[in-house]
Amino acid sequence: MDAALSYADDHFDTFVGELEDLLRIPSVSTDSAYAEHVQQAADWLADRFAAAGMEHAEVIETDSHPLVYAEHHVSDDAPTVLVYGHYDVQPPDPLDEWDSDPFEPTRKNGTLYARGACDDKGQMFMHVKAAEAYLQGEGELPVNLKFLIEGEEETGSMAVTDFVPDNKERLDADVALVSDTAMFAPDTPSITYGLRGLAYAEITLRGPNRDLHSGNFGGAVHNPANALSALIAGLHDENHRVTIPGFYEDVRDLTPEERETYADLPFNEESWRDALDIDAVRTEGDYTTLEGLTARPTLDVNGLWGGYTGEGAKTVLPSKAHAKLSMRLVPHQEVDNVYDKLEAHLQAEVPDTMELSMTRIHGGDPVVVDPTVPPMQAAQTAIHEVLGTEPVFVRNGGTIPLVADFKNKLGLDTVLMGFGLDSDAIHSPNEHFALDRFQKGIRSIIRFHQHYAAMDA
Amino acid sequence: MDAALSYADDHFDTFVGELEDLLRIPSVSTDSAYAEHVQQAADWLADRFAAAGMEHAEVIETDSHPLVYAEHHVSDDAPTVLVYGHYDVQPPDPLDEWDSDPFEPTRKNGTLYARGACDDKGQMFMHVKAAEAYLQGEGELPVNLKFLIEGEEETGSMAVTDFVPDNKERLDADVALVSDTAMFAPDTPSITYGLRGLAYAEITLRGPNRDLHSGNFGGAVHNPANALSALIAGLHDENHRVTIPGFYEDVRDLTPEERETYADLPFNEESWRDALDIDAVRTEGDYTTLEGLTARPTLDVNGLWGGYTGEGAKTVLPSKAHAKLSMRLVPHQEVDNVYDKLEAHLQAEVPDTMELSMTRIHGGDPVVVDPTVPPMQAAQTAIHEVLGTEPVFVRNGGTIPLVADFKNKLGLDTVLMGFGLDSDAIHSPNEHFALDRFQKGIRSIIRFHQHYAAMDA
Repeated sequence: MDAALSYADDHFDTFVGELEDLLRIPSVSTDSAYAEHVQQAADWLADRFAAAGMEHAEVIETDSHPLVYAEHHVSDDAPTVLVYGHYDVQPPDPLDEWDSDPFEPTRKNGTLYARGACDDKGQMFMHVKAAEAYLQGEGELPVNLKFLIEGEEETGSMAVTDFVPDNKERLDADVALVSDTAMFAPDTPSITYGLRGLAYAEITLRGPNRDLHSGNFGGAVHNPANALSALIAGLHDENHRVTIPGFYEDVRDLTPEERETYADLPFNEESWRDALDIDAVRTEGDYTTLEGLTARPTLDVNGLWGGYTGEGAKTVLPSKAHAKLSMRLVPHQEVDNVYDKLEAHLQAEVPDTMELSMTRIHGGDPVVVDPTVPPMQAAQTAIHEVLGTEPVFVRNGGTIPLVADFKNKLGLDTVLMGFGLDSDAIHSPNEHFALDRFQKGIRSIIRFHQHYAAMDA
Repeated sequence: MDAALSYADDHFDTFVGELEDLLRIPSVSTDSAYAEHVQQAADWLADRFAAAGMEHAEVIETDSHPLVYAEHHVSDDAPTVLVYGHYDVQPPDPLDEWDSDPFEPTRKNGTLYARGACDDKGQMFMHVKAAEAYLQGEGELPVNLKFLIEGEEETGSMAVTDFVPDNKERLDADVALVSDTAMFAPDTPSITYGLRGLAYAEITLRGPNRDLHSGNFGGAVHNPANALSALIAGLHDENHRVTIPGFYEDVRDLTPEERETYADLPFNEESWRDALDIDAVRTEGDYTTLEGLTARPTLDVNGLWGGYTGEGAKTVLPSKAHAKLSMRLVPHQEVDNVYDKLEAHLQAEVPDTMELSMTRIHGGDPVVVDPTVPPMQAAQTAIHEVLGTEPVFVRNGGTIPLVADFKNKLGLDTVLMGFGLDSDAIHSPNEHFALDRFQKGIRSIIRFHQHYAAMDA
């Protein structure tokens, strides 16, 4: 391991230069105008894997953007780590809010500014360089290593979602490792041990068979927009709990120890509220803000529409009203089960004056990983050694459907070891990544492999 | 009067031919591409007034479409009738659903098909021809007659709304007379003695200062779309009554006699529901459908929007959510008073997590006319004589703000004597007006003037 760490330190300037080369490729996955560059980034990445010394590296073409797959087998006795990441980036808009060209990486005070610097080119590339440090500096890896790097994480991960269940043998591993999250705070490194799931639905309430004049029909024809409001309002009770029967029955309650851990996290709620310009929060029951944001299920309206939404007045009593509703799920809720409960509840509550239809748009199961399993402990030790601070285990309110797929389809726990910061402006102008964190990430990954191999042995 | 009636019958074919000329002018007020034709219709109409023998007729230019004003003074002792109507029409779209050219009047089985045949060129022109029948057939009118015909009733009556209070002396009269409504049913002529008012508002709920990711913020940041739904839902109670404090305090209750009259009207609720494809109605408390539609105040959502309303999913927790809300008012509710109550109630109910703003878009006061006053009785007698059936007095759920202005600004009751039918397809393809009703309308108006003059004397 020491030789790998020395190699990484000795070659750090080269690593940064290579990352800059990758950042110069505008691999924006959502815009077909950039398709050629997405392909270019995949090819570039496969070359880097080969150059790092990985015994196999290939670009796998798909119906959408290509996947990059690489592997290096050391021994049947060594554990296998599957690294997942993505080489595509968000669009750079709005361009005029950037202080430098988003696709011409710019160093300032030890920080690298470019689209993708953190999300996820910078963080993903740490894993490539950690592998190189072992293969070139040490001569061998302590673990078997597989890489699955996709090019459309920012647009829905279509290809990789199909690829995973179709390639169970190829992706056979002992743990998945991902760096695509942030540390809890600049001086509080963290390992994410939970992600919420998602069940996203669209509902339509239909009343009369056409838009009506509210003067001629209001007062007897029940208005679908009013009825939709009542239906949505009825989904929460006065304690801000979701009223869908059985919604909470599969929710694993937070343990007293978990709640203590939450309470100990360095979270300044007032400045968090100030940044959002809100005077108060709404959490379920007596849960704290952090618990509500990450460990409790939710039901939010993501979109709402019906009737006349232009300027001025139109006295329409609309025929239909619509809402997009999504629920964030926590273990052990299951997407399909929650969809069923929502639909049954809504159908039971629809007034006799109208009809309701519901479409299940997309979902992902929630995930929690036991922080005491060997790879989580290996990550904790590695980060502690490199950053000098014991990382905290935290849960994240968002959803990475692929992490649930790793668990459900491949039986793998995922270690979410992120070195970003919430202030890194991912998805925003002036995205950046401190080179110090890039370097510490590489060192942490090198140490992780070693510790994990030792623990597993 | 007999000479006027004979003249009208003798010249009926000419009258229809003139109406067809007017219907050929595509005076669509909402589309500036037709502006020239709107002007052309105004000029044409002023010429017809002059040809009818009215002593004064003029086109009054305004900031928007012109008004046509005409008057004929008989005697200071005679009562003065102010006729109001409009010469503009709705757009003809969708054109491909017309069986004939909307601006080439087509006669079929005694019915005239064209945009504006009923609303309101046909009905308005009955009044012009009734005046001509007196002036040319009888040699004189039994009443002093003033005409105020506007060219933008279909787009908000801007110019005439300013003109009325600015021209009180010129418009001085004893009663207003309008034919722009429908009969209750083909064999049930009616006089409309009540119109609901309107208070139309737009509200915006603002939560966080920007759209947020529902995974990262859902569960603690209160969602404005959910909160708006709750706010709207709270505006009605379980008896479908509006919960705004004091909302009903100025509402004049229906008398037992009025409710009996409603019950006696020939209304087939089942076929009415079938036409709308609804299984049930929602009325306030125990009011009947017809009462709910015309004699009780309402609160309807006319528009609702917030968050992501495109295809698929976007996990946004929106910064803002909006609604257009309108209330139909009944005597003696007042627009400004009701706006005040709505705003006070909403502000009291806004959660501490967000801010609410409300804009008053536009309104009109409700109107009822005592059916026993002389002009109403004159209209009842006239229609009875011509159609052979005693007309019923009914209330209409819609709003004609100008009728309230006539009452509030000029002190005038309005007789709403309409000869359309709900099946005349006004505002729709294949609008039509039966020539039989056109003729009976002219005869009824001729008789109205005579009876009203006699009653007033």
